[in-house]
Amino acid sequence: MSTSLFTLLHRDASCGARLGSLNTLHGAIETPIFMPVGTNATVKAMTPDDLLAVNAQIILSNTYHLYLRPGHRLVEQLGGLHSFMNWHRPILTDSGGFQVFSLGELRKISEEGVRFQSHLDGSYHFLTPELSIGIQEALGADIIMCFDECPPATAEYDYVSRSLEMTTRWARRCKQAHRREGQQLFGIIQGGMHYDLRARSLEQIFEIGFDGYALGGLSVGEEKEQMYGVMEACAPLMPQDHPRYIMGIGAPQDLVEAVWHGYDMFDCVMPTRNARNGMLFTSQGRINIKAKIFEEDSGPLDPECGCHVCRNYSRAYLRHLYRAGEILASNLNTYHNLYYFLDLMRQMREAIKNDNLAGFRREFYAKQQIHHKI
Amino acid sequence: MSTSLFTLLHRDASCGARLGSLNTLHGAIETPIFMPVGTNATVKAMTPDDLLAVNAQIILSNTYHLYLRPGHRLVEQLGGLHSFMNWHRPILTDSGGFQVFSLGELRKISEEGVRFQSHLDGSYHFLTPELSIGIQEALGADIIMCFDECPPATAEYDYVSRSLEMTTRWARRCKQAHRREGQQLFGIIQGGMHYDLRARSLEQIFEIGFDGYALGGLSVGEEKEQMYGVMEACAPLMPQDHPRYIMGIGAPQDLVEAVWHGYDMFDCVMPTRNARNGMLFTSQGRINIKAKIFEEDSGPLDPECGCHVCRNYSRAYLRHLYRAGEILASNLNTYHNLYYFLDLMRQMREAIKNDNLAGFRREFYAKQQIHHKI
Repeated sequence: MSTSLFTLLHRDASCGARLGSLNTLHGAIETPIFMPVGTNATVKAMTPDDLLAVNAQIILSNTYHLYLRPGHRLVEQLGGLHSFMNWHRPILTDSGGFQVFSLGELRKISEEGVRFQSHLDGSYHFLTPELSIGIQEALGADIIMCFDECPPATAEYDYVSRSLEMTTRWARRCKQAHRREGQQLFGIIQGGMHYDLRARSLEQIFEIGFDGYALGGLSVGEEKEQMYGVMEACAPLMPQDHPRYIMGIGAPQDLVEAVWHGYDMFDCVMPTRNARNGMLFTSQGRINIKAKIFEEDSGPLDPECGCHVCRNYSRAYLRHLYRAGEILASNLNTYHNLYYFLDLMRQMREAIKNDNLAGFRREFYAKQQIHHKI
Repeated sequence: MSTSLFTLLHRDASCGARLGSLNTLHGAIETPIFMPVGTNATVKAMTPDDLLAVNAQIILSNTYHLYLRPGHRLVEQLGGLHSFMNWHRPILTDSGGFQVFSLGELRKISEEGVRFQSHLDGSYHFLTPELSIGIQEALGADIIMCFDECPPATAEYDYVSRSLEMTTRWARRCKQAHRREGQQLFGIIQGGMHYDLRARSLEQIFEIGFDGYALGGLSVGEEKEQMYGVMEACAPLMPQDHPRYIMGIGAPQDLVEAVWHGYDMFDCVMPTRNARNGMLFTSQGRINIKAKIFEEDSGPLDPECGCHVCRNYSRAYLRHLYRAGEILASNLNTYHNLYYFLDLMRQMREAIKNDNLAGFRREFYAKQQIHHKI
């Protein structure tokens, strides 16, 4: 774990943004990068060919869900997650930590691990750092995550402080348990919205030593200003020679801010989930395809977008499909939204190469008509 | 309408089966052919690219549904159905007759037409032969159908007899109303399960003269033997130099029987609807992908199938997707089922070319393990 698989290719002279490359067993990915979320061993409404067509380089899948159904041993027996889902580019799995803590009443935390009830059938399970690593080894992702505790944004200082210490102890157990050759293990930094706690967590996790470092516990109900504050405060403390991942973000604006501050990897259900609800991202901002104003609109979803949906379908047709409850609505909307997110990342990589992320960011805000407060 | 766009290429020496080619404004189709159903201007769970990949040559869409939503005038304004849904091969639209009669309590029939309530919002509408043709002209399909009355299988002889006479009068009104250049209009033969009434309907419809002839009122609740009986009784009376279409069928076995008797065109929601319910067609018969026995099955859905689903996914993965309620389940299952149906037709065309549909039929029944009673 001493030689990083991450290569820092360039730093933007206009800000903290970085251009990099991360090697994995299934090929290299360019950073900064966005990872579409494939919870149940499928990115909802997408085929693997669709994912290739929107230029997805890596996807994220969920330990919690796959452990419960169909079971990690079954996936392993069928050749691992890549083969199971017919996706042969890199995969990152989360540790199940975030999902388990989201269960609320259905879980109980102790030093040993977390006892929880399945959201599917109410059955009891006990997830520990060791089991989380075991599941992720069986699934066989290229990058796996430490099992952490993820407190809500409302948690008190003392709770967050004690929690991050346990997350550190769990991180040690994860590293200790991890055996699978070539599979990278990332550490997770907690500490809520408190900069001193973030710094302490970062120091402890960094000291253990991982292949990459992630900020967890963001996008858990806090204000955007708080989230951006944590990003900014942590950025100078993050290691230079390893990938920096912010888990669970975000909106396009969040991605622009995070890249600007020097973060490299991101995942979020926003493009896929919003697509299924008819909320679509365009170069001019978000639109709701259900709206009556699109009823007779023969124009493309986003006139500036070169994706297959924008080249072949009208807003009126997309609205019709959505209103008729057709499966194709989910497919086309998801395709476009993922294309938008991944193309946004591509444009940012290009801008960094030209030391111009500052210019790109200004233009982004101008187009999006968002009042820029940061 | 005197020169047919249909070319009879070959007759199988072993039975009544025919090989043909039907010219349309969007290209020629090979017959016998199966038409996937795209009710709401989309074949459920398929992209147009998927349809090309499974070798769909023509699809069917529904006048009733598109009239109600998004409205035929809107589709016309947006360039017609082909452009609206991004499908540039031939389309056939039905007349709305079957759908309106399926509404039961929500409709009232008179000589003038049918008053009905929308299944979407309960609003009142009055569909006449003239309006049906007007809608279908606005949608702009390559082939359109006469507006007919489709009595249930339980209808009494006298009712069916009076009904087919009205269907004939409506057919005359349809032909009279039809103006759109190049668009083909097919007549529909009714008469229920009564051979003499079928013969009378056929004679009347044939006398009016259409670009093709369809048997309506099959697959409406009757026994398979009754359906096959009507097919057989009508076949010698059907015109040789025009396409013969049986509406709303069918199961693979029904298609084999119908082709054997000399019918050329078919449509049915079975491959698409069953796919969404996890019922899949294979060379060895039907399987239910939900079944526990497929839990750890690493093999392809159908070992004899060359489709993209059978080449890339295991039964265990397809079962997982189905159980997880994933949209990809509908996509992959539909893709396979349509491939199966369309490949069955391709194989039958090949067999006819070699005067061997009899051999093909024997082998089909042997493989499907269906006891062949006909």
